[in-house]
Amino acid sequence: MITIAVDAMGGDKAPVPEVEGAILAARQYGHRIILVGDRDEIHQRLDHHGFMAGGEHPIEVVHATERITMEDHAAKAARSKKGSSMHLCAHLVASGKADGYISAGNTGACMAIAKMVLGKVPGVDRPALSAVFPSHKGSPIVVLDVGANVDCEPAMLAQFGLMGQIYSRLVLKVKNPRVGLLSIGEEEHKGNALTRDVTPLLKDLALDFIGNVEGRDLFSGHADVIICDGFVGNVALKVAEGLAEMMSRMLKESLSATISSKIGYALSRSAFKDFKKRTDYSEHGGAPLLGVKGVCIICHGRSDANAIKNAVRVAGEFASSNMNQRIEEELREFAQAG
Amino acid sequence: MITIAVDAMGGDKAPVPEVEGAILAARQYGHRIILVGDRDEIHQRLDHHGFMAGGEHPIEVVHATERITMEDHAAKAARSKKGSSMHLCAHLVASGKADGYISAGNTGACMAIAKMVLGKVPGVDRPALSAVFPSHKGSPIVVLDVGANVDCEPAMLAQFGLMGQIYSRLVLKVKNPRVGLLSIGEEEHKGNALTRDVTPLLKDLALDFIGNVEGRDLFSGHADVIICDGFVGNVALKVAEGLAEMMSRMLKESLSATISSKIGYALSRSAFKDFKKRTDYSEHGGAPLLGVKGVCIICHGRSDANAIKNAVRVAGEFASSNMNQRIEEELREFAQAG
Repeated sequence: MITIAVDAMGGDKAPVPEVEGAILAARQYGHRIILVGDRDEIHQRLDHHGFMAGGEHPIEVVHATERITMEDHAAKAARSKKGSSMHLCAHLVASGKADGYISAGNTGACMAIAKMVLGKVPGVDRPALSAVFPSHKGSPIVVLDVGANVDCEPAMLAQFGLMGQIYSRLVLKVKNPRVGLLSIGEEEHKGNALTRDVTPLLKDLALDFIGNVEGRDLFSGHADVIICDGFVGNVALKVAEGLAEMMSRMLKESLSATISSKIGYALSRSAFKDFKKRTDYSEHGGAPLLGVKGVCIICHGRSDANAIKNAVRVAGEFASSNMNQRIEEELREFAQAG
Repeated sequence: MITIAVDAMGGDKAPVPEVEGAILAARQYGHRIILVGDRDEIHQRLDHHGFMAGGEHPIEVVHATERITMEDHAAKAARSKKGSSMHLCAHLVASGKADGYISAGNTGACMAIAKMVLGKVPGVDRPALSAVFPSHKGSPIVVLDVGANVDCEPAMLAQFGLMGQIYSRLVLKVKNPRVGLLSIGEEEHKGNALTRDVTPLLKDLALDFIGNVEGRDLFSGHADVIICDGFVGNVALKVAEGLAEMMSRMLKESLSATISSKIGYALSRSAFKDFKKRTDYSEHGGAPLLGVKGVCIICHGRSDANAIKNAVRVAGEFASSNMNQRIEEELREFAQAG
């Protein structure tokens, strides 16, 4: 049985969605869940859902005395708040008591703690935060790095390509993932100093490198893995979030502006739900931090119970994938060949 | 009377939307238009619309013997195809025969030719391509650079801030434009080497610098001017385009999946049109190239007649704004103060 630790004190509305998501995941996937955080608050939420400890679906509670907030300075909190729910989650994985953990807390602190407590997979220079985007057709698209490393050397991006490709293959079950380099035109000469320097390195790797892709390919399905530095990736992610929010709001306003469109809205409500589900990031279950020795999934601070549930699913799939061993082996092969 | 030259051979479907857009603009704004390109093709399209040369709305045709395509290498075409419609447009502005020009052709070639033929406004190091985004509430948002300069020095971004602020004030009529620096978090320490180095420069300028903004602020309205290097800006622009396309397609599919939602779609059609208009880039009329000595508006290759018409409007507003003189003066003041 797979065991996933859930940081119950991470998100904006913690521990409400965390506890509900954990219950849903325990029921749906049959994983063992360890909820980490303030014991009283967690038990209150479990009671609210009528969930009995020691029942059919095993959920355990581990008490944490501290909590890292969104306002905390990431590096400082990682060093000083060693009794935090985030630290305890990472230690549960490092000691083998859990197979992976998820947190919807302060992203910077979460990355710092994961690197500090779990360490890096041998051969990896810098772990990378990876976002999974829905594509119009077919399988989801992995984009990395989306915020762990803002100023990147070419060799780091080559490793991102390798890690992303393995994740796509082993966890997202894409047979032969095509790897693209995020740039500003498809032709090889179009790009900046970094993309021009990383291109020959990517060509040397044992992966299906398809060359430059553009911003629109985050959704097109032309590539299964898209690599970029963490600054560009983070901007891209937040542009997409911002636009999706604005479009939804505008569409709602436009639709309710007239009576006939109000009727139209009512009639098309089920279609809207379907659409929301297909574009909803929470369905895709958080961002895996690739390259750390263990499984760490970082969720959006605004994650609801459904997003938490899906992150637990993704953590379970990642934990059973043998992914980190593959990264270690492929990096070793590449180093020996190079 | 304002005269705008229109490159009739630029876009993907040239000269069809160019000629139609020019006619619409001549009628709606009363500008004099010079259509530049293959004389026969242009006259054929003018005839198609029953447009009489020498009629009430003055449209002139200037023949060009060459044409730059999307497949042309930008710098090479700029140097070798000196008889192209793009070159002739720039020369019409340089010689004072037109007050500005627009082109929906090869963006790279268009920027190279504008810089070559028009030259730079005194004090400007690098002209910047500027996109105008619709915001949920209030005035449109200028983002620059979106592709003219991929590897930027801090001083270049500071100039972008100044130019963008003047454009927002004089052309978009925003009273006190707030200038934001595109980064990966609002706190000053969040960013990469470039954003950290440019922050003190922006603080020294005589503008309302509000610090870092994030990708979502391209649509939020928190800033009126957003500055970034041309690589990041171009990626952001294309992420937004790609997502908007995917969402529209998905929504249509979801809505037509059931009979009741088909009825819903029919009833809400007018609302959809309103929504489309509010999010349609073509309504905002192309991307001005700021910092060249003259007025040059670059349109998307897929521009329709409406987009061309709006680009002519924007070129006219830019030409009557005294914008380039303001840039020169403010840069001189800054250089003297620094």
